[in-house]
Amino acid sequence: MRLKAKPLGLDSGGRSVVVLNKDDAGEMGVLALGRVRVGFGGRELTAIVNTTTALIGSGSIGVCEEVRRALGISEGDELEVEPTPPPKSLHSIRSKLRGKKLAYGELLDIVRDVVEGNLSDIEIAAFVTALHAFGLDLDEATGLSMAMVETGNTLDLDRPLIVDKHSIGGVPGDKTTLLVVPIIAACGLTIPKSSSRAITSAAGTADRAEALMPVNLGIEEMKGVVERTNGCIVWGGSLHLAPADDIFIKVEHPLSIDPLLLPSIMSKKKAVGANLLVVDIPCGRGAKVKTIGEADLLANDFMELGGRLGIKVRCAVTYGEQPIGYAIGPSLEAREALGALMGDRAPPDLIDKATDIAGILLEMVGKGDGKALALEALRSGKAEGKLREIIAAQGGDPGVRPEDIGVGDQRFTIRSEGSGYVLWIDNASMAELARLAGCPRDKGAGILLHRKIGDRVKPGEPLFTICAERATKLQQALEALEDMRAVGVGERMEMLIHEVRERALAKRAVPLDR
Amino acid sequence: MRLKAKPLGLDSGGRSVVVLNKDDAGEMGVLALGRVRVGFGGRELTAIVNTTTALIGSGSIGVCEEVRRALGISEGDELEVEPTPPPKSLHSIRSKLRGKKLAYGELLDIVRDVVEGNLSDIEIAAFVTALHAFGLDLDEATGLSMAMVETGNTLDLDRPLIVDKHSIGGVPGDKTTLLVVPIIAACGLTIPKSSSRAITSAAGTADRAEALMPVNLGIEEMKGVVERTNGCIVWGGSLHLAPADDIFIKVEHPLSIDPLLLPSIMSKKKAVGANLLVVDIPCGRGAKVKTIGEADLLANDFMELGGRLGIKVRCAVTYGEQPIGYAIGPSLEAREALGALMGDRAPPDLIDKATDIAGILLEMVGKGDGKALALEALRSGKAEGKLREIIAAQGGDPGVRPEDIGVGDQRFTIRSEGSGYVLWIDNASMAELARLAGCPRDKGAGILLHRKIGDRVKPGEPLFTICAERATKLQQALEALEDMRAVGVGERMEMLIHEVRERALAKRAVPLDR
Repeated sequence: MRLKAKPLGLDSGGRSVVVLNKDDAGEMGVLALGRVRVGFGGRELTAIVNTTTALIGSGSIGVCEEVRRALGISEGDELEVEPTPPPKSLHSIRSKLRGKKLAYGELLDIVRDVVEGNLSDIEIAAFVTALHAFGLDLDEATGLSMAMVETGNTLDLDRPLIVDKHSIGGVPGDKTTLLVVPIIAACGLTIPKSSSRAITSAAGTADRAEALMPVNLGIEEMKGVVERTNGCIVWGGSLHLAPADDIFIKVEHPLSIDPLLLPSIMSKKKAVGANLLVVDIPCGRGAKVKTIGEADLLANDFMELGGRLGIKVRCAVTYGEQPIGYAIGPSLEAREALGALMGDRAPPDLIDKATDIAGILLEMVGKGDGKALALEALRSGKAEGKLREIIAAQGGDPGVRPEDIGVGDQRFTIRSEGSGYVLWIDNASMAELARLAGCPRDKGAGILLHRKIGDRVKPGEPLFTICAERATKLQQALEALEDMRAVGVGERMEMLIHEVRERALAKRAVPLDR
Repeated sequence: MRLKAKPLGLDSGGRSVVVLNKDDAGEMGVLALGRVRVGFGGRELTAIVNTTTALIGSGSIGVCEEVRRALGISEGDELEVEPTPPPKSLHSIRSKLRGKKLAYGELLDIVRDVVEGNLSDIEIAAFVTALHAFGLDLDEATGLSMAMVETGNTLDLDRPLIVDKHSIGGVPGDKTTLLVVPIIAACGLTIPKSSSRAITSAAGTADRAEALMPVNLGIEEMKGVVERTNGCIVWGGSLHLAPADDIFIKVEHPLSIDPLLLPSIMSKKKAVGANLLVVDIPCGRGAKVKTIGEADLLANDFMELGGRLGIKVRCAVTYGEQPIGYAIGPSLEAREALGALMGDRAPPDLIDKATDIAGILLEMVGKGDGKALALEALRSGKAEGKLREIIAAQGGDPGVRPEDIGVGDQRFTIRSEGSGYVLWIDNASMAELARLAGCPRDKGAGILLHRKIGDRVKPGEPLFTICAERATKLQQALEALEDMRAVGVGERMEMLIHEVRERALAKRAVPLDR
């Protein structure tokens, strides 16, 4: 069928999408979400069909920007349009919908079609939902990880030993990576760290690092930094390591399911060539993983999958009931981390966690008492020096001081009404307040804690300060604060957490930031 | 946030969709497929967010036709846009994703949001996939059926007894309903039949009936016809009985899953007020249901669900290995059905099936030997007279003769190469050929069989004739024929069906037409 092109002036997320009038679609026997081959000027591609009864008349075809650009189409051009079967990978998705185990070749087909934009949202959503419902076994997790590596960039460092660390996230203020990378690199190991930005949290490691240095490096720039300094802290988004993950996560997020957690993480580690990995699993009521039993099961999965992929994995199950250190928000956290490396008012929990994780990595390569070595790297200033090397290599100012990092000057301090101990600090409320105050886009926004769990507090004493760059944002955070129970103060014998009077909609406790 | 409207000039299938620049979306903390409240001129609505990096600049908002019309927006109008949580029903969908059983209230929320366009494709796809993966029990099937009734129109006939019939479909040429409705109505029972059009088959009952009379009636017109004649044969699509089904089916079709089969069918029966129902389950290699065991299990489900909904159900498991009668295609089938009612060359299998099903219905209301009564209604001409009454009431020509119904004159007859018996006729190939020849849009297109299973055939004798209205369509059907084994001719001792030499992609055997 020959149809006149009508550019829609819209992109469709990397997918080739065309819009047909229902009559023309019916004539060809194509339904919405079916496929057509579209040919013009000697080029052709397969597009996903949407249908309409209005706006695109019979005889015309709406084309998204992806199709317009690929075929070089102008308004009114005559396109050759023919029905064509859906991609072979859809058969594999249908197999998974029937509960069948998928082989590597099938998973590779699916992941490749996801990356190339050949599958519709519905098909990807069904695949992810089926993985969630039927589960995926170790073979499938391995196959998916390899398929995700195969369809993206890889970092090819000419080094025999490459180490990495990863946190499954969920705890606000977790700037551990900003300390672990320079400690490890200062001890002579290679650690090419790629990190994510916040999706639903106050700050991702890439956001924190960006307060100190550029993080949007390409894969060749990343390689150069690591070859010079043994380490780096860059944003994963511009590296295209396992790019399928970015597409899967768009579907997983609205559904609050995360069946690809393990393959997503491990494929990125494989893609940078890691042989040794420590996975941090924060554990506690306000963290992603609530109990130590759950954490241990997840740790087993990481270790087994690592074994299949040739990555030796150890896991650190860490205390995740409250924020790490005292600062939440990109710039506030960068300040705190830099201060800690400089030996300046270092929060003890941050130092402990960073040296624990660095210590495990050091012991994995046979370096005796890892924790002691890590603490020594901090104390001696070698880790600080290494971070400044990395900052310089990534294009930042190696002389940066904590007080150079700008922080929002719109501030409000929340004070304790009663007297007693801080009984709990709610991670989700802290993240929400920081986001309302402007995080992660306003880098200087965030929260400064004045007390942590177990600290004594008297009436009128400060609990935490909300910082914002803009007064309107501060106002929004303060308004939300009224319905929140962000910090609990009381005596240690007080047993009631809260009373439930009517059916409450439980909030999601799983921030999907990886 | 205030944003300038940019109408997209596109509808989005009944949903309120807006397109935001990624920067603006990030500023508000909204991700793709999140929700915003959009306000303008004192009106407001909740819209699903898509994001883009180009084409919609920061400060602008693309609005689909649904949003433009609902708020009365013109290009450049300033809209008030604020993030808002997703609908409550998404929490219930997430519960189902965790395998939880859903209560009626939750199912009603979901179905209402599906009908009102408040859920994205991804969310609907996840719900349907989860229903498929985890299954739905009798309580949930009942709840879904009731929710689908609740969110659509109902037919309120002031009659104590209303009967209905339904076929789960899958067999080409099945014009049984065109006989059952007039037989039943002629026997004094009320049968308000709504039927579907073909989605992937050659003809739906609505397509067949349309060759005889108008079928696009509204619910009040349908009521008038039934009150006058006791029966009707109308298209369900314009009645809005259980309209959620039309949306679910758009998702189910590309995925080839059908978890809502039972609630979809039963909700439509409940919506017309049926108390007694016969469900036809064609069974055989080329049908939806392959074995009698499977058919019996499905029959149990129909009967149990019917019991919950206050509908007494019996099922007819029927032979579905080949087309019913000799004609496939809307006009060819209407001709054959009208001829059969007139006693003219009536195919024995069609007569047998129609009187079996009508007979079961008659016996369900206590009318002695139902099959004999049904045959008598045919033989006496009462059924023919009743069909003509219905044709007149629906606005057709009651004097219509079979030869008045136009049939395509582009024809080609396929003849037997060998000698022997017709061993099999492939339903899927017949449907595909008929569609390629123009069905269901070209009403006069289709297939006429000259031999059926078990018939003797000699070399050069005709097996079937492909009819088309247009020569190009006939050509397309003939080209496809070369790769098909539509009819098998051989001796009865021949055992080999076909040889498999390389891994074949099995074609879908489930035509989703309901």
